[in-house]
Amino acid sequence: MKFYDCTTAPSPRRVRIFLAEKGVSIETVQVDLRNGEQFSPAFRTINPDCTVPALQLDDGTVIADAVAICGYIEELHPEPALIGTTPQERAIVIALNRQIERDGFLAAMDAFRNVAKGLKGRALPGPYDYEQIPELAERGRARLGNFFHDMDARLATRDFVAGNRFTIADISTLVLIDLAGRAKLGVPDECTNMRRWYARVSARSSANA
Amino acid sequence: MKFYDCTTAPSPRRVRIFLAEKGVSIETVQVDLRNGEQFSPAFRTINPDCTVPALQLDDGTVIADAVAICGYIEELHPEPALIGTTPQERAIVIALNRQIERDGFLAAMDAFRNVAKGLKGRALPGPYDYEQIPELAERGRARLGNFFHDMDARLATRDFVAGNRFTIADISTLVLIDLAGRAKLGVPDECTNMRRWYARVSARSSANA
Repeated sequence: MKFYDCTTAPSPRRVRIFLAEKGVSIETVQVDLRNGEQFSPAFRTINPDCTVPALQLDDGTVIADAVAICGYIEELHPEPALIGTTPQERAIVIALNRQIERDGFLAAMDAFRNVAKGLKGRALPGPYDYEQIPELAERGRARLGNFFHDMDARLATRDFVAGNRFTIADISTLVLIDLAGRAKLGVPDECTNMRRWYARVSARSSANA
Repeated sequence: MKFYDCTTAPSPRRVRIFLAEKGVSIETVQVDLRNGEQFSPAFRTINPDCTVPALQLDDGTVIADAVAICGYIEELHPEPALIGTTPQERAIVIALNRQIERDGFLAAMDAFRNVAKGLKGRALPGPYDYEQIPELAERGRARLGNFFHDMDARLATRDFVAGNRFTIADISTLVLIDLAGRAKLGVPDECTNMRRWYARVSARSSANA
């Protein structure tokens, strides 16, 4: 297997943290996103979507999505469970993780990509160019504020986002907070539960991945 | 189990088609989205996110996401497989389905919700109000055009979106095309592979669900 990664990008970081928590290491290839290597003919043959992460299996098959890669790794290495151990647990964590992606991760992406100077004309990842929409950055900031407060309420009664153990939902939340930081959007001071959770989760060695 | 549904909404339709393909029936409760029943105190206790679909299990647990519900149903009723039968198959279908959601479904949602007269101030589903962004509707239309052409190329060599059998990725694509139709965005005439696929998939009895 070969893992196509970029150390500065948030999406592949989700996979790196997942692998670190599992104690699994995979041969890794860095793709230089800053210099446009994702658009090179060589990388397009691996992932025509021109994004990382991508996991190439030994038969050549490519899985080009962070969550799909994590699900695959979980099936191959079930312990420690980062998604769930029963159909019900998995469904709850997957639903929660998708809600976090939509209300938090995507909001942070909107807030960051629609104003970042280096991303003019590149408001979305992928093979097509789309102009930045400043109103969308503003909406991203508003959504993120709502997300932080909702998540703070959730964490009032839970050690981790999905309950009493660390899951992929914690990974998604950690990575989106660090992404939001690039758009100068921190967890608000009054969100004390979330700030405590963030300090605890950031201190895990996997967070350095 | 109880399935919270709304016959006119695209997201729960994905689950209805999935259930029809499986031959599974679940007690169903209609939520009247047009009259705001999703914001009622009674429904908020079921799903604070104020969205359908939501599946309430017998122990009271609620799974409030279309794809998470489908994954749960697949685990309980593996045949016919609509996601996959091996870790690798599942990873490929999940990655593809997520790409379709992002580049197609979300684009259609953006195109529709940011201009629909009945959705002023409600550009996003969920408990919070966000104003429509006309530029985002326009971007949605452009993304959808790219999506249709990419999918047409994909379907040149495949009977179904993921390969030689019908999967959740076909369901997502079918539902987003019908949603795009509401924003007067049809599959372009030149996308002949996709039009052939659409006619075939729409003719399945599950498409009436």
